[in-house]
Amino acid sequence: MDDPLQKLTALFAKFPGIGGRQARRFVYFLLSRDETELKRLGAMIADIKRDITQCPSCQRFFPKSDLIKESKECKICRDSARDGSLLIVVEKDNDLDSLEKSGTYEGHYFILGGTVPNVEKEVPRFIRIDALKKIVAEKTKSGNLQEIILGLSLTPAGEHTISYLRTILSPLLANTKVQISMLGRGLSTGTELEYSDSETLKNALLNRHKE
Amino acid sequence: MDDPLQKLTALFAKFPGIGGRQARRFVYFLLSRDETELKRLGAMIADIKRDITQCPSCQRFFPKSDLIKESKECKICRDSARDGSLLIVVEKDNDLDSLEKSGTYEGHYFILGGTVPNVEKEVPRFIRIDALKKIVAEKTKSGNLQEIILGLSLTPAGEHTISYLRTILSPLLANTKVQISMLGRGLSTGTELEYSDSETLKNALLNRHKE
Amino acid sequence: MDDPLQKLTALFAKFPGIGGRQARRFVYFLLSRDETELKRLGAMIADIKRDITQCPSCQRFFPKSDLIKESKECKICRDSARDGSLLIVVEKDNDLDSLEKSGTYEGHYFILGGTVPNVEKEVPRFIRIDALKKIVAEKTKSGNLQEIILGLSLTPAGEHTISYLRTILSPLLANTKVQISMLGRGLSTGTELEYSDSETLKNALLNRHKE
Amino acid sequence: MDDPLQKLTALFAKFPGIGGRQARRFVYFLLSRDETELKRLGAMIADIKRDITQCPSCQRFFPKSDLIKESKECKICRDSARDGSLLIVVEKDNDLDSLEKSGTYEGHYFILGGTVPNVEKEVPRFIRIDALKKIVAEKTKSGNLQEIILGLSLTPAGEHTISYLRTILSPLLANTKVQISMLGRGLSTGTELEYSDSETLKNALLNRHKE
Repeated sequence: MDDPLQKLTALFAKFPGIGGRQARRFVYFLLSRDETELKRLGAMIADIKRDITQCPSCQRFFPKSDLIKESKECKICRDSARDGSLLIVVEKDNDLDSLEKSGTYEGHYFILGGTVPNVEKEVPRFIRIDALKKIVAEKTKSGNLQEIILGLSLTPAGEHTISYLRTILSPLLANTKVQISMLGRGLSTGTELEYSDSETLKNALLNRHKE
Repeated sequence: MDDPLQKLTALFAKFPGIGGRQARRFVYFLLSRDETELKRLGAMIADIKRDITQCPSCQRFFPKSDLIKESKECKICRDSARDGSLLIVVEKDNDLDSLEKSGTYEGHYFILGGTVPNVEKEVPRFIRIDALKKIVAEKTKSGNLQEIILGLSLTPAGEHTISYLRTILSPLLANTKVQISMLGRGLSTGTELEYSDSETLKNALLNRHKE
Repeated sequence: MDDPLQKLTALFAKFPGIGGRQARRFVYFLLSRDETELKRLGAMIADIKRDITQCPSCQRFFPKSDLIKESKECKICRDSARDGSLLIVVEKDNDLDSLEKSGTYEGHYFILGGTVPNVEKEVPRFIRIDALKKIVAEKTKSGNLQEIILGLSLTPAGEHTISYLRTILSPLLANTKVQISMLGRGLSTGTELEYSDSETLKNALLNRHKE
Repeated sequence: MDDPLQKLTALFAKFPGIGGRQARRFVYFLLSRDETELKRLGAMIADIKRDITQCPSCQRFFPKSDLIKESKECKICRDSARDGSLLIVVEKDNDLDSLEKSGTYEGHYFILGGTVPNVEKEVPRFIRIDALKKIVAEKTKSGNLQEIILGLSLTPAGEHTISYLRTILSPLLANTKVQISMLGRGLSTGTELEYSDSETLKNALLNRHKE
């Protein structure tokens, strides 16, 4: 297959959520743009890693222009106004973006980079488990950390990852004051009681709160 | 309009969730059934209130055959094995059915019969507020009740009803040990962090739990 | 199961397109209406066949009040302004309603009462094939009929019914001038070329028209 | 905004059918790939116009490797086995791909490059009307062309484009034997009679065919 139309279509078809037909629309879309725009997009993609770096603490991607001389960390990790006693472990950068946009979390992050599929031996291939262990060890030693929130989605893969992380983290935290916590389960905005599954109803009752 | 086809269609179109076209399909469906079946269905509908009664405590509908001599209450309200310290207020019978099916609630119920639309003066037209006040007064006096759970859906109408019920119930409970509680809010089964609204993320964080 | 709540729920669950949960909502809805309304609905259902009759020609259901002394036929079949040379065979009364509402058909109808499932011996159980043969024989003899349109949906069941009707009707029409026709296939309103299946594209090309 | 993450997100958000959140997922996806892959994708995008050319006849994009010395035309336009008496005008390359995949069309193509929005003066900005006029003039002169099929989608924009093309093409074809035709309208695969709009039912009846 030496047809560049098909080759580029195949590359776009690897993008998350993109099928063959939409990938082809992307190619035709690009062919309708002018040369300058294509050169610019192509260069940005080729060089994106030159301009973006990854935070050694939380693992998120951020622009190098946010770096300061004294640190390799991202703005969030460097921010002394944030609550260093909390560390939330999330799956991906988009999850961090959603939490930041909601303005409801003031602690630190760790981006796992994926989830653990159901039965799997080579976990490190899927998630940044060594980096997580290292950061937890550091933060535990420095004496500040009090709680690690396992902030995974309530999907089967997310729940499997939660139980995997527990097996790994529990022994590391055995002689510390650091506790593992989970996101609250219950009714989410818009949920109707009648159509809720038993698990959600159970959690809505268990986690009820008085005022 | 004296056309019985159209008249029956119009009656079915009042059923919850049924539009004109489906109402008409119902009529044609009935016309394809035999006489005996139609007589039976017609009689059951005409007489449904003769065979079903409403529990004076929780207000739910139940078959008269469940009645015992000594009481007008339904099986659930009479059941001494259930936890009399809990009373959950729900919108409708289907909500009670869902909770019972989930097997996660052991207390008593009160079925409000509706919700309070946004700004509304004649609330009693929509919900059984007087019956609720009466049952709360009785249960408070008997000394058993400890918690009233406002078990409404997390829809705008449900949330408005919650705040209305609080205004009504708070003064009644002023000198009692009875507390008002709300269903836990947070992630429900299947929820992905990335697509959650800020309110749900906030509650998931607030209601997080350690183990 | 002697619980009338469950018995009535089970009856509603047989209605077209209605599942168990919605059936139960119907029952609770009825319990919330007043006695008079229930008696009225029950009576209408029980007596619907007393007020409605079925046209011996097209088989559709219509109110007896539309009958005239001289005929047992419905308004459409009696209407001398309609084109007696055309007979369209449709699956159900709702299809006739849609065609009448569209105002685009001036001929006569025959309502088959169902479709022929894929492989099936006892066809008469599903469709009014004998009544169809009889009406076709009559209309052929009277010399007026010129075309029978097989107006079934383009679903697998509809297409199977079309080929079944052909096998039955072709020999009956062998020595007549009556032709069998099919609804035009092609793009329907809103269809985008890019997302059309090959069969639809083929028909759109085959049935193209000049102006 | 000098943040490369946001700049690349903004570029992807211009892609057809892509919103802000998915655009951002694309960027994070790319950051997770290795350098070599990014360089390759970037180069392919920057150079796509170098490897792809546009057919001067049908206007479609195709790989330069398909070119032969004697012609600037694409494989389809050069193919003497195809029916030169037919020319179908479609909106975009994807429509041509769908038709070719369906294997039901043997004539030539012209890709308009867009549709004509409802009321619009500067039509040439949206569609290749001059190229169409030129190709029609050439094909008319050479005496081979017999029919131009207006192969637009049955959307409002498509229908508006059809009537615009007619206004433009009719005078050009006045003294020729070339006819303008439209794709057949009617039921498409899967369509149910009951849920069809009046326009579709009308066309299904008008375009009915005998066998």
